[in-house]
Amino acid sequence: MNGAECLLRTLLANGVDLCIMNPGTSEMQFVSALDRVPGMRGVLGLFEGVCSGAADGYARMTGRPAATLLHLGPGLANGLANFHNARKALSPIVNIVGEHSTQHLGQDAPLTADIEAFARPVSGWVRTLECASAMGETASAAITAAIGPPGQVASLIVPADYSWSEAGEPGAVVQRAPRSLPTSETVRDIAAVLRSGRPVGLLLSGTALQARGLRAADRLRAATAARVFANRNGARMARGGDIPAAERIPYFPEAAQSLLAGIERMILVEAKRPVSFFGYPGLRSTLAPPECVFDILASLDQDGIGALEWLADELGAGPVPSGAVVRPVLPIGEPLTASAIGRAVGALVPEGAIFSDETVSCNEQIWPHLAGAPAHDHLPVTGGSIGQGLPVALGAALACPGRKVVALEADGSAMYTLQSLWTMAREKLDVTIVILANRRYRILDVEMKRTGARAVGPRADEMLDLTRPEPDWVKLSEGLGVQAVRATTADEFIREFSAAMREPGPRLIEAVLPRA
Amino acid sequence: MNGAECLLRTLLANGVDLCIMNPGTSEMQFVSALDRVPGMRGVLGLFEGVCSGAADGYARMTGRPAATLLHLGPGLANGLANFHNARKALSPIVNIVGEHSTQHLGQDAPLTADIEAFARPVSGWVRTLECASAMGETASAAITAAIGPPGQVASLIVPADYSWSEAGEPGAVVQRAPRSLPTSETVRDIAAVLRSGRPVGLLLSGTALQARGLRAADRLRAATAARVFANRNGARMARGGDIPAAERIPYFPEAAQSLLAGIERMILVEAKRPVSFFGYPGLRSTLAPPECVFDILASLDQDGIGALEWLADELGAGPVPSGAVVRPVLPIGEPLTASAIGRAVGALVPEGAIFSDETVSCNEQIWPHLAGAPAHDHLPVTGGSIGQGLPVALGAALACPGRKVVALEADGSAMYTLQSLWTMAREKLDVTIVILANRRYRILDVEMKRTGARAVGPRADEMLDLTRPEPDWVKLSEGLGVQAVRATTADEFIREFSAAMREPGPRLIEAVLPRA
Repeated sequence: MNGAECLLRTLLANGVDLCIMNPGTSEMQFVSALDRVPGMRGVLGLFEGVCSGAADGYARMTGRPAATLLHLGPGLANGLANFHNARKALSPIVNIVGEHSTQHLGQDAPLTADIEAFARPVSGWVRTLECASAMGETASAAITAAIGPPGQVASLIVPADYSWSEAGEPGAVVQRAPRSLPTSETVRDIAAVLRSGRPVGLLLSGTALQARGLRAADRLRAATAARVFANRNGARMARGGDIPAAERIPYFPEAAQSLLAGIERMILVEAKRPVSFFGYPGLRSTLAPPECVFDILASLDQDGIGALEWLADELGAGPVPSGAVVRPVLPIGEPLTASAIGRAVGALVPEGAIFSDETVSCNEQIWPHLAGAPAHDHLPVTGGSIGQGLPVALGAALACPGRKVVALEADGSAMYTLQSLWTMAREKLDVTIVILANRRYRILDVEMKRTGARAVGPRADEMLDLTRPEPDWVKLSEGLGVQAVRATTADEFIREFSAAMREPGPRLIEAVLPRA
Repeated sequence: MNGAECLLRTLLANGVDLCIMNPGTSEMQFVSALDRVPGMRGVLGLFEGVCSGAADGYARMTGRPAATLLHLGPGLANGLANFHNARKALSPIVNIVGEHSTQHLGQDAPLTADIEAFARPVSGWVRTLECASAMGETASAAITAAIGPPGQVASLIVPADYSWSEAGEPGAVVQRAPRSLPTSETVRDIAAVLRSGRPVGLLLSGTALQARGLRAADRLRAATAARVFANRNGARMARGGDIPAAERIPYFPEAAQSLLAGIERMILVEAKRPVSFFGYPGLRSTLAPPECVFDILASLDQDGIGALEWLADELGAGPVPSGAVVRPVLPIGEPLTASAIGRAVGALVPEGAIFSDETVSCNEQIWPHLAGAPAHDHLPVTGGSIGQGLPVALGAALACPGRKVVALEADGSAMYTLQSLWTMAREKLDVTIVILANRRYRILDVEMKRTGARAVGPRADEMLDLTRPEPDWVKLSEGLGVQAVRATTADEFIREFSAAMREPGPRLIEAVLPRA
């Protein structure tokens, strides 16, 4: 079999059966092989950032890698921002990039670029295939690297001639190394910290933010009065229904430092020490009190859930009765605000929903109300690169066909990768997109003052403004094949969002927010 | 003054008075300074690839750099594909990227990335500012690096605290080194080659493809029977009216090798040895005959125009009478094909138009007819990264407000950076966009076969198809604030394109082509 077929078969043998792609000439052998290698689902994105972000969303929901297939250096470049987010999410992705054929390399053709250099900043593993016969083993090595733990982007660069040449048999089936538990000494030491009665926090991220992790942390909270905090930029967090809540670390450092004030020991569970999103003049970037001592219960590649359960058992912490779910009240008759949207969504969303949340300035008005929704998963921005919300929603919908995906999108952020809508339409994915249209990079009004800049003058204002002209998200969505409506009152929003929850998607609601 | 103001004033003192940006928190000081530093025009792009491509288009038309202002690693990443094209175009660009404040670096915040690593593959010069007081001199160094010759992308990475700190006086006004001429020995030697009577070709690129260069080359052609070839991926080529034509090197290697067959000596004028776009099984990537000997009249950083004129004088080559311009005949009553569009555009476009040409499979049907248009400039894809056509058109329109810009766009390519339309609407730029809607990555049907892949099966077909669903470019354009119409016959196209030539833009025409 040729190299392309060998690669596809190696991926499939390892359970990688989704390839999200924007291929070009150097990847045509892979595309051709889709018809000869049964089982590989090809999904086309019309921009590479759609592909990389969708693979991230897929990985966050399944824990398994999808493959991406991109065209040469520039195609990879277009995917980098969402690979950056995937890197911060610790998402496993097998990123395949076509390269010029080896006899064409060195000719400095127009598309020639340093693909490895593009790949390195976002990838935990980068390799250019060295000969066609190494395809199988190199593909297996890429999968091994991708699946971790923890997950990472593994970039395999394939010269075109190795795809069309004889490559031999597929590579080995590889196993993910199990996530290890901490040593019993670590568990005992941390149990002692929790028994001390001093102010202790548990900071959860990674897999620890799944329901089992949160339940184990809640046992610890109830038994020891430790507080349970959540990394706001973790890949995925279970929430709603009877899933115990964690205190999410706020975005701005003052609020975060205030929340964490008095914490003397912070126990990290698949989490890093908390830092602010940006640095500001005269403010600390670290969020825990300066004198806080950190303990690592589970590192990023360890089993945070198992560690929390062990620790809870060690402390004899019993089960905690579930609290009652209080769903938000529908904002009937209200003006359409971010808070009203949050309440409507929290009231109407079905059990098992997945939120891809790329709200920015509106986030704090929406977030509290989602807690009243039935049990769901929440996928935040991990690496801060906007333009991930729609692709991540797309990938989550590919991963979980039976679940309702709701993309909560800022209008500024949605614009970066709006091509995602087309793929949602093609694949008939059950995604409801809510565009929070405040017609402004609103967060920058705040950040402008925080970085010490003076008042926003008229010329600066132009750089933050999205009203001249106003993007029309209904037309944009319809232009990409996704039915869309505009809501300007809470009642309209309730009606349209209810309809979207009843019927399969994709559909888009442009929620027009009042100007500040 | 603070660092941001120092940087803006250094740019302005050096004639860099346009900044195309998609800023974030770390760049707010620059945005704020726009209101305190008169003369800097800020133009907002809603995606970074719009900014980098627009700066490329601006540079190609003015020979001068614009600045780009991008947000941290991921913002830069989104601009890389069009910086790749700019690198291949030898376009001068001062690329400013905000970085986290120095006290925030090392905290591994969500947006932390290796910005220099992202910048290096596309930049001839990369530097992270080392202290606020070095702002002026470092900005001057960036400008010096950008302007060359030849031009290049100079990436200046500015930690946020150096923008808000006191930075002292602006940097020096720098001068571009003049492009040098070849030695008289080189000119004499190449004159001898041209006098030999053997089959000689001149291959022009860079500034040599401007009207003066083509006229000098035409004197050589008339005096010596040398043939004059044009790099098809040069940054900018003058054409139409009485500008002498050059033979453009074809896209596919067989056609290019056939065109160049028999050439014994090839004289390079700001050009590299010609190579094919892609490598194919069993085909050479080099396009000149294997035994062809190359001579360099002017290297990429030299004065190709001056060198050609000197050579023509050395050979006593007199002026060549202008040929008559034969405008194409309007395709009245015809079906709407790429050829009909080419003829209509060639017949209707005014003198001094600028074509941003990102047609792919349709290119050969359009290109010949543009030769019959009045004198114009043609901006092709330089680095092969699609998604440059709309941004380059935007930048050319910013550069040349009195000239009509026509973007000839493949529907697949236009999708990558469609956000460009919004900036065209905001800046009320006189751009007419023609979307050649064949609803397919058509070139890949050809490339699939050429790379040796088998027939396009149904699953491969899905990866090339743009009909399920069909993007609606009228809605997409209107959604971004640009008026748009659809044409399905040549008569409709003629009517709409004529209207677009009469009235200022922007406006978009979706030209629906027959399915293959």
